[in-house]
Amino acid sequence: MNTAPFTSLADLARKAPESGIVEVMNRGRARGGVLGLWAGEGDLPTPRFIIDAATRSMAAGETFYTWQRGIPELRQALADWHAGLYGTAPDMERFTVTGSGMQAIQIAVEAVSDPGGRILVPTPAWPNLAAAAGLRGAVVEAVPMRFAASGWMLDREALADAAARPGTAAIFVNSPSNPTGWVATREDQEFLLDLARRTGAWIIADEVYGLFVYDEAPSVPSPKGRRRAPSFHDIAEPDDRILFVNTFSKNWAMTGWRIGWIEAPAALGQTMENLVQYSTSGVAVFMQRAAIAALESGEGFLDHQIERTTRARGIIADALEKTGRVRGASPHGGFYAFFALEGEKDSRATALRLIDEAAIGLAPGLAFGAGGEAFLRLCFARDPAQISDAAERLTHWISASL
Amino acid sequence: MNTAPFTSLADLARKAPESGIVEVMNRGRARGGVLGLWAGEGDLPTPRFIIDAATRSMAAGETFYTWQRGIPELRQALADWHAGLYGTAPDMERFTVTGSGMQAIQIAVEAVSDPGGRILVPTPAWPNLAAAAGLRGAVVEAVPMRFAASGWMLDREALADAAARPGTAAIFVNSPSNPTGWVATREDQEFLLDLARRTGAWIIADEVYGLFVYDEAPSVPSPKGRRRAPSFHDIAEPDDRILFVNTFSKNWAMTGWRIGWIEAPAALGQTMENLVQYSTSGVAVFMQRAAIAALESGEGFLDHQIERTTRARGIIADALEKTGRVRGASPHGGFYAFFALEGEKDSRATALRLIDEAAIGLAPGLAFGAGGEAFLRLCFARDPAQISDAAERLTHWISASL
Repeated sequence: MNTAPFTSLADLARKAPESGIVEVMNRGRARGGVLGLWAGEGDLPTPRFIIDAATRSMAAGETFYTWQRGIPELRQALADWHAGLYGTAPDMERFTVTGSGMQAIQIAVEAVSDPGGRILVPTPAWPNLAAAAGLRGAVVEAVPMRFAASGWMLDREALADAAARPGTAAIFVNSPSNPTGWVATREDQEFLLDLARRTGAWIIADEVYGLFVYDEAPSVPSPKGRRRAPSFHDIAEPDDRILFVNTFSKNWAMTGWRIGWIEAPAALGQTMENLVQYSTSGVAVFMQRAAIAALESGEGFLDHQIERTTRARGIIADALEKTGRVRGASPHGGFYAFFALEGEKDSRATALRLIDEAAIGLAPGLAFGAGGEAFLRLCFARDPAQISDAAERLTHWISASL
Repeated sequence: MNTAPFTSLADLARKAPESGIVEVMNRGRARGGVLGLWAGEGDLPTPRFIIDAATRSMAAGETFYTWQRGIPELRQALADWHAGLYGTAPDMERFTVTGSGMQAIQIAVEAVSDPGGRILVPTPAWPNLAAAAGLRGAVVEAVPMRFAASGWMLDREALADAAARPGTAAIFVNSPSNPTGWVATREDQEFLLDLARRTGAWIIADEVYGLFVYDEAPSVPSPKGRRRAPSFHDIAEPDDRILFVNTFSKNWAMTGWRIGWIEAPAALGQTMENLVQYSTSGVAVFMQRAAIAALESGEGFLDHQIERTTRARGIIADALEKTGRVRGASPHGGFYAFFALEGEKDSRATALRLIDEAAIGLAPGLAFGAGGEAFLRLCFARDPAQISDAAERLTHWISASL
């Protein structure tokens, strides 16, 4: 019998990192009574009208295989929704439905990078892109952003240097950013697009939080009148090397569903189809019916969610700023406060102390890579009353223990 | 503006093959009136009790993130189901829920092979494993099976030679086989397991069709009295290097749902979790509730489905055998007839002719790799009346046109 069965596991699989948040979550769950704001998830269940669409579809027997890239009705609904948001009229051939935003990222990485390709990531950043790239055998290069009183800024010079080196497959641009709340300006995006055009690198654009922007942020009104972050859609041509990765999770409270999409130049359609075919082979029709309902009838829910998230942001940002001992508590976009506490440099240790001493659970910034080591991430896509509670626990702890 | 946007697409993505069945399906759909038996899918919608479980879960608000590897209740239900089928009592730590059987294969390939690793595939075989391996940058080596009057057989000598060469990461073993209907004997499996133990290669065991076995097949009764194909579960130790990939699609008529599982040595749990995390980050809880219902209350449906599929197999096999001009029409397992017509060597051309001249849609065998070029695949997981119709169309065409 075989006694050393795992020596032959693939290196890339063995090296895939554990989530840097899990240790804190486990400590918090074990302790009990902890207000856990560590995850990137709101507190609202999926709205009823979305669930009903899925229920009707299942009941009607839509339980068979379907189009790998998504049912045409959903791909058209995506095109229409983009038109309403960006004032463009995109071809539905640009859209491919995926089994989560995460899978959109995995597919994007596979599409643009062979093993050994380089992917540039401004950090701090959501770690899953880097991990997915690592599993591909791609080389992830962190390009730390700069943190100043006004917020986070791209290090354009470092990005330009890094992109100019051979083998750069892609630049990952997440704006509004998870975790930092940074919102790219139009000038940032022009710089990045120009860089991509000059070097041949792709941009993987994660604009998932595009509708969550606050007063300080650069923003643009959509044709529908909805405020949104600047987007590469504002400046790019249809055949620019940009892959947009997106999800239904955040806007429509569908985190648990695992449905997202990727938008790519239409000529890549067959490649996208193949990448879906050989990973999950598509998304359930009834899920897609729910997604259509979200796109077509979700504006009221979006208003509600954005309004309460904006209120919650105000509560936590004001409370933390008022202590005078916190940096970075007022994100420009997204739904996270990403802040550093005076004198605290080790976010893992601080996060564990906060569990034990303040019964509040935050994600340690070191999980988000270079530049995040001293920061903590708090998700405020919650009932404002809960965020008031969080603010109280935190400010009390700061004044008592810091 | 960028004028050659796709020259920088990843080679591995560009080389991912299109499905070899699509051309025939497109021709059939364009023509109309074609009885399409090209896909690997039954004609029964998902049973009501399974849908109801999902509906209840959604209505109860189970729409949030959940365990990456699957909810404990489903993993335990999988362990119990395996106990009932194989007479073992597996640890639930062995099971990870995946977003389809296809994704189980993708994860298995990622777990055992780095880019450049070699994966051996007895052919003809379902092409998606090879395509997923190709996307990983693994090298797929076809080891053609031998076709004789008694059916298909492994070429053990060729497998042993191939496995002994350096860099062999895995051997893919699909029994009962899609498309050939081959069912591995216990001796086959002992040979393969011994080979894996001696060479350090993993076995990726696809036993998805294990409950679809016919009179000619080697089979074993399960503790529940259900007839099933021999399984690596019968001979392997828990820490043998075997990854079982499986799906809810076929047994419980859930093809459209995209839910499956992977079974691995328990010590690989964290690796499995990471591979899920960085691909689709789990499966919707309401899907998993449906899967539990399938496992716990699905025996009656399974009886029904196996009975009608067995009847349908008898109809098509008898009709084709009777012509005296067909080889291979009596599969030992699975739910496909994979047969060659006298004098016809080019399955693509034959499949297209059958669309035009007999209004029947079959999958061309060349889509399944070396050894399949002359064969056609017909899915008989259908209403026996429909399979009678198919038999008539085919036998009429054979006597009129062959």
